[in-house]
Amino acid sequence: MLTEHIGQLDLVDERHLPPRQVHERDLDWLRSADLVVAEVSTPSLGVGYELGRAVEMGKPILCLYRKQEDKLLSGMISGSPGIVTEIYEGLEGAKESVGRFIATRKKKKEERLKSC
Amino acid sequence: MLTEHIGQLDLVDERHLPPRQVHERDLDWLRSADLVVAEVSTPSLGVGYELGRAVEMGKPILCLYRKQEDKLLSGMISGSPGIVTEIYEGLEGAKESVGRFIATRKKKKEERLKSC
Repeated sequence: MLTEHIGQLDLVDERHLPPRQVHERDLDWLRSADLVVAEVSTPSLGVGYELGRAVEMGKPILCLYRKQEDKLLSGMISGSPGIVTEIYEGLEGAKESVGRFIATRKKKKEERLKSC
Repeated sequence: MLTEHIGQLDLVDERHLPPRQVHERDLDWLRSADLVVAEVSTPSLGVGYELGRAVEMGKPILCLYRKQEDKLLSGMISGSPGIVTEIYEGLEGAKESVGRFIATRKKKKEERLKSC
C-alpha cells in the first residue's frame, strides 16, 4: 500500500510491533483513506487482506501491476468489481496511473456535489 | 481456501474463466460458507483478499500456517481479531486443527441456541 508514511525515516520498525497493533494501525490508515493505491506485482497475504477489507469499506481502489512475462495477476484482484487494475511500466508509468486515478475521482466527486 | 470443490475432477480449469467470473464464483462460495479455513503458508493476493472479505462478512475463520524457519506470517493475518491462526505440522496436524475449530464453533452455536 502507498501511504504518506512511506519513506518516513522515524517510522518504527514494524517487526518489533505486536501483530495486533500492526493490524489496527493499518486498518486505521485504511479507514481514514480517501482512496487506496496498492502495488500488486508480488503475491502478499497482507496486501490482499487489506484490499478485501477496503472493497467492503467501499473505498476507491487502484491496483498497479508491473508488466511481467509468464505471471498472471490473481483473478480475485483483476476480477473484483471494486478494484481498478492498471498494468504499468517503471516509476513514471506508475505515477501517471495514480495521477489519472486521482483526477478521475476528483471529477466524479465534483459532479456528485454539483448534482446535490 | 478449502472448499468442498477441492479434488473435484470435473471442475473447470479456472485459467480459462474470465477473472470477473472467478471472483463472483469464489465470493458466492464465501457468502454461503458456515466457516472459512485457509492455508496461509504461501503468500497469495487472492487468499488474502478473500480473508479480508470474509472478516468483513463476520465469518468464523481459521488460518493454518505450516511451521517454517525464517518466515513470518503477515501481521495482517496473525493480528486480525477476526481470524484464528494455528501453526500446524503435516496433514494430520492440519486435520486436527480443523476438527478442533469446527467442534468449538458447534459448541458455541449450541450455547447460543440454548440461551435463546
